[in-house]
Amino acid sequence: MSDSVDSRNDERPIGVVVLGMGSVGTEVVRILTESADDLRERVGAPVVLRGVSVRDVSRPRAVDPALLTDDPAELVVRDDVDLVVELIGGIEPPRQLILSALESGKSVVTANKALMAVHAGELSEAAARNGVDLYFEASVGGAIPVIRPLIQSLAGDSVNRVAGIVNGTTNFILSAMAETGADYDEVLAEAGRLGYAEADPSADVEGYDAAAKAAILASIAFHSRVTADDVYREGITAITAADLAAAAKFDCTVKLLAICERLNDGGAEKISARVYPALIPLEHPLATVNGAFNAVVVESENAGRLMFYGQGAGGAPTASAVMGDLVMAARNRVYRGRGPLESTYASLPVASIDDVPTRYYVSMRVADRPGVLAQVSGAFAEKGVSISAMRQEGAGEDARLIIVTHRAADRAQSETVAALEEMDAVIKVSSVLRLEGTNE
Amino acid sequence: MSDSVDSRNDERPIGVVVLGMGSVGTEVVRILTESADDLRERVGAPVVLRGVSVRDVSRPRAVDPALLTDDPAELVVRDDVDLVVELIGGIEPPRQLILSALESGKSVVTANKALMAVHAGELSEAAARNGVDLYFEASVGGAIPVIRPLIQSLAGDSVNRVAGIVNGTTNFILSAMAETGADYDEVLAEAGRLGYAEADPSADVEGYDAAAKAAILASIAFHSRVTADDVYREGITAITAADLAAAAKFDCTVKLLAICERLNDGGAEKISARVYPALIPLEHPLATVNGAFNAVVVESENAGRLMFYGQGAGGAPTASAVMGDLVMAARNRVYRGRGPLESTYASLPVASIDDVPTRYYVSMRVADRPGVLAQVSGAFAEKGVSISAMRQEGAGEDARLIIVTHRAADRAQSETVAALEEMDAVIKVSSVLRLEGTNE
Repeated sequence: MSDSVDSRNDERPIGVVVLGMGSVGTEVVRILTESADDLRERVGAPVVLRGVSVRDVSRPRAVDPALLTDDPAELVVRDDVDLVVELIGGIEPPRQLILSALESGKSVVTANKALMAVHAGELSEAAARNGVDLYFEASVGGAIPVIRPLIQSLAGDSVNRVAGIVNGTTNFILSAMAETGADYDEVLAEAGRLGYAEADPSADVEGYDAAAKAAILASIAFHSRVTADDVYREGITAITAADLAAAAKFDCTVKLLAICERLNDGGAEKISARVYPALIPLEHPLATVNGAFNAVVVESENAGRLMFYGQGAGGAPTASAVMGDLVMAARNRVYRGRGPLESTYASLPVASIDDVPTRYYVSMRVADRPGVLAQVSGAFAEKGVSISAMRQEGAGEDARLIIVTHRAADRAQSETVAALEEMDAVIKVSSVLRLEGTNE
Repeated sequence: MSDSVDSRNDERPIGVVVLGMGSVGTEVVRILTESADDLRERVGAPVVLRGVSVRDVSRPRAVDPALLTDDPAELVVRDDVDLVVELIGGIEPPRQLILSALESGKSVVTANKALMAVHAGELSEAAARNGVDLYFEASVGGAIPVIRPLIQSLAGDSVNRVAGIVNGTTNFILSAMAETGADYDEVLAEAGRLGYAEADPSADVEGYDAAAKAAILASIAFHSRVTADDVYREGITAITAADLAAAAKFDCTVKLLAICERLNDGGAEKISARVYPALIPLEHPLATVNGAFNAVVVESENAGRLMFYGQGAGGAPTASAVMGDLVMAARNRVYRGRGPLESTYASLPVASIDDVPTRYYVSMRVADRPGVLAQVSGAFAEKGVSISAMRQEGAGEDARLIIVTHRAADRAQSETVAALEEMDAVIKVSSVLRLEGTNE
């Protein structure tokens, strides 16, 4: 660094501890060791690993055994520690450990989306009170720089919308379903075999993981407090091969999207944060993001549309994001600076999904007789939902009607679907999906 | 911001001056005015416009006339100024003005790629000496956050390659040529009519603009000093409709690329920084970046491949990048911090293009007689260049031979082309382009 020497703490080493040595922690420890010379130059002082906490200290690991401990609480308050890297995951004990570290004047780097999606307020306040950094780039999008660009690069802009594919497991499953025509269960099993889905995949396939990330993205994009509970959420477990096939007929594909949107509800600004599988047009930039890759599209007032793309998970990619935060936090210790913390001054309220304007795609089996179309379209009209496209398929037993609507309040759309389900002419509403990424 | 109040300079306003009121300056002044409330919250103090320098103060502009001056030198040293935004462009007077601002303890935000590509060292040293910020996100990629992610988010990773479409004019021209089949001159004229090309387009079409950006990207990606003169450069003026058509036959398109690469030359690390039009496979992420859009692909050791995409030019998009820098620099004044400056500790040497491994695409008119292929392929073999694909087209007068090579030192490739040009069997070497974005 060409920073002047006078302003820095000479070459006092920066002490780092890593909590948790799973796939990301193992990579962080490796990089700290292998890249020590580069890190020293970039930080302005040596970065020294002071300890690693693991559950089972007897298991052999790629780290000096003397550094291992099963007592993270002791580690995070030690005098020779400047920086705590939390990679345990889950709410507790990470929350208590991070609070304890912050209160002891340590800076913290975490990849913990579940924690940040719920307790960002409490943790940020503790960081601010103690004049230290709290960085969490790795909590969203794995290797992809998206938190820092949103907080810093777009600090002078006004974000209108963030839409992302932020969960690799579900994207792998939906991509494979689109490509092979296979059904959900079959592809999920395959994803498990290949290591793309966990033994209990519910956090991924039910959308909880994406919802946590949506909360984090919405909070920083709109300078407001949004927690996981504020995020409307649907998973992908009900998606069928038929849905993917039908989407293709409309030149669309299906993706699990995390959407954070600024709504202008008659002058009163609100936020929508939601996660659901949606049809998107094949020409949309997110449509070609396949497999375990992630991407986030940001639309802002002045920058227009930006896209960030890369590996959304995995040990080394996530470690790259952790290390970027680590170097910046370490550098701030050396030069006595501090990065920007979260900012929630705008305090925009979160809208109910009922009030969010959405577009629907509805596929139903209908009776094959005159007047059915009039009845069905009447149900939409009654709720004030106008129809954008309609397609009739099959005949007799197999007569199907597919309808795509224009934008209307989600409540009106879902009430229309409920009305269709009650209708004699409608044998079965077989699929309901929202449509995103269109200009209408 | 939830930063604690005790560490900040209370609410002393941050004084800003803007040098130059072209399309970007006009937008910056507009945002400073319209978003004053948001900026105050994000910075932690009011941000106040103290003055704007323009060449002709009598011309009416969207700013309080009392703020206008044609004396920028006076503006940048004023006591009530904390932050100077340089949007004049070119080397002088910006260099002197920025040096003067930095020496007076002001932080500086600039969008000036020509200046940063040549004088980054001198300017960074002045910033370091005076403990102030020098930010230049808007100098590469317009609205796209790429400088900050490279410096900060990838601070703990090792970048191997940066390849980008960083010039909107040439990308508009090449996209239009690919789409319409029209020739270069025709499309250039159209680009001028639509405002995508300047009256004198040479800085764009000859690759100087992209080369300046390549120098900036290479410097930060590889922590080394790379200036515009170090960048090998070819423009797009010789690209023909036939080149685009031929590229399509190889499932490729032609893009003007800025490439920054870490080379391992027998253990000795070097950098390559180069700009030229190249064939890239249609499935490469940069192949679908069309029109005036820009994109940068970064490949690093741990993060793998990342892509950043967005609007590469224009008043409002570029102003978004300037404003992000401005908020961060202003915030640093309030909290007495400093962002990371450039770091050139690695001091890797820049390789000559001669030594860079490249792949060539060579199209030539040849005599239609037996033995020509043997002669031509012999010329490649003689220089140690092996052939990856060959295609023979036409017959008689129109007999053509197209050859795509494997990777070999660029000197060997170019010497082969020179040898072909001397050959009786070769009537004319009609096109020579490099091929990028393949795994071979």
